[in-house]
Amino acid sequence: MGDFELDGILARDSEPVTVLGLCQLRLLKDSRWPWLMLVPQRGGMTEIFDLTPLDQALLTFETNMVGAALKKVTGATKINVGALGNIVRQLHVHVIARFEGDPNWPGPIWGFGQAAPYDESRKQDFLKKLIEAL
Amino acid sequence: MGDFELDGILARDSEPVTVLGLCQLRLLKDSRWPWLMLVPQRGGMTEIFDLTPLDQALLTFETNMVGAALKKVTGATKINVGALGNIVRQLHVHVIARFEGDPNWPGPIWGFGQAAPYDESRKQDFLKKLIEAL
Repeated sequence: MGDFELDGILARDSEPVTVLGLCQLRLLKDSRWPWLMLVPQRGGMTEIFDLTPLDQALLTFETNMVGAALKKVTGATKINVGALGNIVRQLHVHVIARFEGDPNWPGPIWGFGQAAPYDESRKQDFLKKLIEAL
Repeated sequence: MGDFELDGILARDSEPVTVLGLCQLRLLKDSRWPWLMLVPQRGGMTEIFDLTPLDQALLTFETNMVGAALKKVTGATKINVGALGNIVRQLHVHVIARFEGDPNWPGPIWGFGQAAPYDESRKQDFLKKLIEAL
């Protein structure tokens, strides 16, 4: 598998929230949507089906736990989950809270417009509630 | 849970390929990308985490099986997996084969342009290979 090292673009565009059993949980530096990312800490993985069956099950469990917590904390209309990897090949799974009327609703968020920085206190408040819900 | 009945928009925009343990496997009527969709045959489901833990595991297994088969058959650069549901709320998971230079590469496919109909013989050839790979 090779050693795990976080991709440079993922590291630049997000910040660490916590570590789950398999994945790093990270927050995207973009306040337009509550946008989380899970990165399995396994080297050389690109597709979900590259993972071992056990790791696939862990990734599902952690993704769904994060999705449920994100829905609870934000009251989102819909949680969007996606693993694309067309730009960054290191396996990562996006979990995003969507609301009617949010930027690009009901379209996808990827590749849309420019990231908007967080207000620091709003971000800390969100992360505190998220950690409590996990 | 309620009885399962396929959403009208999903029924209109895709056609059945086969039935897996939990999900209907369907092909989108859009030849721009090899684009499959899994629909868990459970009524009243919107989010993946609405499913029971067993169904979540089945969905993961079937999604990853389909993704691996799609990659094998198409030789795709990257498989994209996504569960959005912003327009159609019935739980469904997209599995798409992406290639460098395909329409909207490396952006997402959802909401991009207009569907292009399949050539019937090309579609049958693709589905035959897919079924063999599953």
